[in-house]
Amino acid sequence: IKRIIANIKSHLRDFNIEGLGDDAAIIDMGREYIVATADLLRQTSHFPEPMTHEQMGWKSVTVNVSDLAAMGAKPLGFLLSMGLPAHMKVEEFDELLKGVLKACEHYKIPLIGGDTKEADEIILAGTAIGITLKENVLLKSGSREGDLIGVTGQLGLAAAGMKILFSRIEEVPIADTSRVMDHALKPRARLKESLIIAKSHLVNAATDITDGLVSELNELIKASPKTIGIRLYEDKLPIPQEVEEIAKFIKEDPLELGLYYGEDFELLFTLPPENVTPLRAQLDFHIIGEVTTTGTIEIVDKEGRTYTLPVKGYEHLRG
Amino acid sequence: IKRIIANIKSHLRDFNIEGLGDDAAIIDMGREYIVATADLLRQTSHFPEPMTHEQMGWKSVTVNVSDLAAMGAKPLGFLLSMGLPAHMKVEEFDELLKGVLKACEHYKIPLIGGDTKEADEIILAGTAIGITLKENVLLKSGSREGDLIGVTGQLGLAAAGMKILFSRIEEVPIADTSRVMDHALKPRARLKESLIIAKSHLVNAATDITDGLVSELNELIKASPKTIGIRLYEDKLPIPQEVEEIAKFIKEDPLELGLYYGEDFELLFTLPPENVTPLRAQLDFHIIGEVTTTGTIEIVDKEGRTYTLPVKGYEHLRG
Repeated sequence: IKRIIANIKSHLRDFNIEGLGDDAAIIDMGREYIVATADLLRQTSHFPEPMTHEQMGWKSVTVNVSDLAAMGAKPLGFLLSMGLPAHMKVEEFDELLKGVLKACEHYKIPLIGGDTKEADEIILAGTAIGITLKENVLLKSGSREGDLIGVTGQLGLAAAGMKILFSRIEEVPIADTSRVMDHALKPRARLKESLIIAKSHLVNAATDITDGLVSELNELIKASPKTIGIRLYEDKLPIPQEVEEIAKFIKEDPLELGLYYGEDFELLFTLPPENVTPLRAQLDFHIIGEVTTTGTIEIVDKEGRTYTLPVKGYEHLRG
Repeated sequence: IKRIIANIKSHLRDFNIEGLGDDAAIIDMGREYIVATADLLRQTSHFPEPMTHEQMGWKSVTVNVSDLAAMGAKPLGFLLSMGLPAHMKVEEFDELLKGVLKACEHYKIPLIGGDTKEADEIILAGTAIGITLKENVLLKSGSREGDLIGVTGQLGLAAAGMKILFSRIEEVPIADTSRVMDHALKPRARLKESLIIAKSHLVNAATDITDGLVSELNELIKASPKTIGIRLYEDKLPIPQEVEEIAKFIKEDPLELGLYYGEDFELLFTLPPENVTPLRAQLDFHIIGEVTTTGTIEIVDKEGRTYTLPVKGYEHLRG
């Protein structure tokens, strides 16, 4: 299966299908683009056991809205196809739907349709449809040498939470886990921030961090028509203290959590240095590195040594 | 699960979600509607064992395009989220994707996106996006007393084919099964016919027959703001000879196959009697009955006796 999924993108390229590089598909409507995205979540891979049905519903909306946010698109509507197991209780379904509807309300995206069938486990296949003025669309392809790299929030929070949940650790004595749990169980898409960035015309390229920072940086490199590279600075990475503490407790490298695990749904973007101040006036963000021409992703560690980072695929914490 | 699914529609009504009555959701774009639909197919329920992977792929596009056809919408794009089992071979995936792409080409709907995850069985969650001028949209709600009821093709073909496939009957000695097999394994959405009907402005209401004729007629009744009913004439139902023969062989009532099983994806519509001749000039169709004010669905049998037809839910032949 891994091999199949890896093959799909090249397959689709063979068949000459456009618009698959970005987070969502684009339909040309003249002055505007309709933006559409599909994401399938399944219980075994995406929902750790302590996740409630309401949180599953919430997450299914968030992952799709995050893809709209990656493109700077305003939500128009959400459709949800559900596979539900035969043994599922009505109350569980109620909770799931409540989570979907709460998230739809939060992101102001109406639930406009869907489909429900029986399945062996909970499967939530969502589709979000959005719209953007053509001149405002955020794409992966526009990064230029000398651009700085921005990220809207902190890194590794959801990863640390997922690690705790999937390894069934009951308690982490040395750290406050409330924020990492919140990120793992109820992630928020950066929709508001996305619309600010899109309208500002201050960034050259953007995406959301679904699959881990390094993987998404590699997407920006691949999408660029010119050969570009990325240099990150370890001391600029916004990896919060509790992620460091939790990583220590579970004997993982905090840098791994920040660089290679996704699900925080932060926005990642590149912008010319002179645009940092004007964008900061509208939005909080961290500068974590710069665009180079090396074709690779490097990191400068705290001692000033430069390493090349391997581009590892990240599917999910499980599955 | 059955109970849950039955509860969903009323749930969604409680939450005051609009646009869920029709085959696809509608987004108001000013002069036009964007139309979006989601349909999830799973191997166990929707794909009889002799169905090839290519045919599965084809069907996943057809069911979604048929929902666009039900609304008179021109296709803009198709997204497919796939759940694929770990043991699936690369060649099987190739076949599946070939079916998807062949169907996309057939309906002239570009594959614009999707998602692929591992799952316990093949799950194909498709989303079709289309567009229509507001004045051309086909809805379920416009039927009026005295309208005649039209259907674009024959009834019971896919049902007869599915019956043979799911009961693993090897041979039906008395009938030609080629057409029923074709309808069961490679159904076609009536997209071209739909666009003719939509442009003609000659029909008052329309839908596609996914879930069986009686079930869809009941949808037209429920969607009408005034109380309407339906009277069908048994001798006008276009149930072809091979369906009669196969029904006899498998000891089923051919009328049951024609009235209660879906998956033929024919279009069903109501139109004023004076519009029949002008529409016939553009399109082949059968008149099978008329719109009454009884609130029920009746059938007049070949002897002239009138019966009320029960509205039975049809999910699938299995699952």
